[in-house]
Amino acid sequence: MRFIHTSDWHIGRQLHNQSLLDDQAHVLDQIVALAKQHSVDAVIIAGDIYDRSIPPASAVALLDDVLNRLVNQLGIQVLMIAGNHDGHERLGFAAKQMVASGLHIIGPLQAELVPIRLTSSSGDAYFYPLPYAEPATVRQVFETDAKGLSVSSHEEAMALLLEQVHSHDSQGLPKVVVSHCFLDGGSESESERPLSIGGADKISPRLFSEFDYVALGHLHGPQYKGCEQIRYSGSILKYSFSEQYQHKSVTLVDIAAQSPAQIQLLPLTALRDVRIIEGELAHLLAVGKTDSKREDYLMVRLLDKHAILDAMGKLRSVYPNVLHLERTGLMAGDQAVVLNRDHIKKGEMAMFRDFFAQVSGDELTPAQQAVMEDILTQLHRDGLERSETHRDAKEEQAE
Amino acid sequence: MRFIHTSDWHIGRQLHNQSLLDDQAHVLDQIVALAKQHSVDAVIIAGDIYDRSIPPASAVALLDDVLNRLVNQLGIQVLMIAGNHDGHERLGFAAKQMVASGLHIIGPLQAELVPIRLTSSSGDAYFYPLPYAEPATVRQVFETDAKGLSVSSHEEAMALLLEQVHSHDSQGLPKVVVSHCFLDGGSESESERPLSIGGADKISPRLFSEFDYVALGHLHGPQYKGCEQIRYSGSILKYSFSEQYQHKSVTLVDIAAQSPAQIQLLPLTALRDVRIIEGELAHLLAVGKTDSKREDYLMVRLLDKHAILDAMGKLRSVYPNVLHLERTGLMAGDQAVVLNRDHIKKGEMAMFRDFFAQVSGDELTPAQQAVMEDILTQLHRDGLERSETHRDAKEEQAE
Repeated sequence: MRFIHTSDWHIGRQLHNQSLLDDQAHVLDQIVALAKQHSVDAVIIAGDIYDRSIPPASAVALLDDVLNRLVNQLGIQVLMIAGNHDGHERLGFAAKQMVASGLHIIGPLQAELVPIRLTSSSGDAYFYPLPYAEPATVRQVFETDAKGLSVSSHEEAMALLLEQVHSHDSQGLPKVVVSHCFLDGGSESESERPLSIGGADKISPRLFSEFDYVALGHLHGPQYKGCEQIRYSGSILKYSFSEQYQHKSVTLVDIAAQSPAQIQLLPLTALRDVRIIEGELAHLLAVGKTDSKREDYLMVRLLDKHAILDAMGKLRSVYPNVLHLERTGLMAGDQAVVLNRDHIKKGEMAMFRDFFAQVSGDELTPAQQAVMEDILTQLHRDGLERSETHRDAKEEQAE
Repeated sequence: MRFIHTSDWHIGRQLHNQSLLDDQAHVLDQIVALAKQHSVDAVIIAGDIYDRSIPPASAVALLDDVLNRLVNQLGIQVLMIAGNHDGHERLGFAAKQMVASGLHIIGPLQAELVPIRLTSSSGDAYFYPLPYAEPATVRQVFETDAKGLSVSSHEEAMALLLEQVHSHDSQGLPKVVVSHCFLDGGSESESERPLSIGGADKISPRLFSEFDYVALGHLHGPQYKGCEQIRYSGSILKYSFSEQYQHKSVTLVDIAAQSPAQIQLLPLTALRDVRIIEGELAHLLAVGKTDSKREDYLMVRLLDKHAILDAMGKLRSVYPNVLHLERTGLMAGDQAVVLNRDHIKKGEMAMFRDFFAQVSGDELTPAQQAVMEDILTQLHRDGLERSETHRDAKEEQAE
């Protein structure tokens, strides 16, 4: 059996208030094309299908379209589980009526695990879908309190869920677990929502070591833990600037009884990349004009040390999708966020000179400079001193 | 072929902030039982499945359960269209993957009508599902502007939609139209959301006269227009007090080629009825104690002409589900809503005497009465006069 393992589609997600629906449609088209090209028997989506429990209608329509192409047009079986971002009841609506068509959606956790036998001309395999579930949900569904079982951590919850997988007789067919969880030692990005506070969400990879393949979702960087076949496919797009150096892909898996899974990463190409560029404004504007990827989603770190009027507007005239701007050059050394007070004090006249030149196109005359200096002196006596008094008072309080 | 026609489930709806989910589950259980008892081939739901485009998760779970029982356990085909309350994209998600199981959900309007042939051992029939669509939606989907067609009213929109129904060759099988619309001459309740302002939502029943049966949704009272087989099943519950005298039911339809549809109403029994009771408080409290239906959802019209402290609390101690209280007895004749100012002025002291007696259990002493009269005089000079001045000013403005 051959299948594609993917996860963390997060359809409907925004990046810095920018809708990514076009970008998502673009990579989902690629996944449909890859599924066809590699003649897969199934596509497995390990949770976080949508970004929110109530996705926008446009996200619902996009997923509907992708499923129609995979299931109805290509005849490929699709199995998906709810992740921590999905609304389990909503995602699982009418799931029983979809089974006959080869679409398996597993929304809410059920006490009785339903193993799914997916078919293939080269041999079937059993899939064990474990939708994301908090320990509290597992306690409730399995009525563990009444049975005197302790389930307080994600690890204990997963161990309980896996009991039915271990005990199921697959009649010699390969066993594939599909789960949305956080494996201990996994690398996080900035775009995953924490499952709990304080590390109680971590699960040991050892729990999964006996299965033929473990299709995981949650972490957005592709990676494996423990052994090669316990694996995160990663998200389909970079959902934060912290992922700028990740290579997004789906995982192509060939699996057969009594032999190790064959694994291959199939790269995805984003419509617009997500990356960080750094430099002085004039330089960035100059190179941008010949940058064929200037429509990428950008975070810009400006190194200029002087004030710039409407830096975002100027950047966007060349790079239309600048989403975030950091004035790194205005920040002092290690303390990138706290402004250096001395630096500001020394620089006021210089900063105003820059500003004046940008707005008027002229340099300050000596008379204008004298007026401005008077104003600055005045401001120092009144406003700045008052604000310093305020700050001193705060610092005293803090001590 | 035998089917049940129902509509306007409005799952998730509230009545005066009271959740009706238990009540809806109760009548939906009856519909499942009736479908089984009458060995129907199909259940047709003519729109307004949910009450809102984003239904609560509990409503999604209830519909999921009902569909599992009808489709999977009883093997009954189910066909439903989106009404004006439903979110079309959301309701229609993955609909193509449900068809194989016998579940047909028609969400957004498509330019190409897909006739659905439902099967029966006694002969098949064609169903033409027309989800609710504003004229603007019909213009967009059918690109009527480009074709020079005028579609401004609901009547024109429906005429266009029906063209494909008329031209479809049903090979001698009966034709059943399923639609969610407002037929001219239909009786409204207070619980339908108007489709448009000023009567442009009305459709002539004549448009439907050539079909073997027309399963309509939108109006909440069961009724037919034009001829017996052009019919509203009505809602499954009373969704406003204006429906207190309606009898809710589903419609059992037997249909065969070349013979008129056989129609029978199957009554539904609500868990709690929705009704209005009227009388003086003491009388209502006395009879309520032996009223076996005192848990009904009630609007109470109190005829007492004096002030009553916490009338709602007193009523609810006997009738736990009083949802609305009208102090009919305090209102003046025809103008039930506008308080009679003279009546109030005359009655202040009398009303306070009632209030005092209820709170303290004693009558006012002459000294207490004198104090209260002073206060009222004072209030009249200050507050009431000021508010009258304000009202006079407003009336002048209005003139």
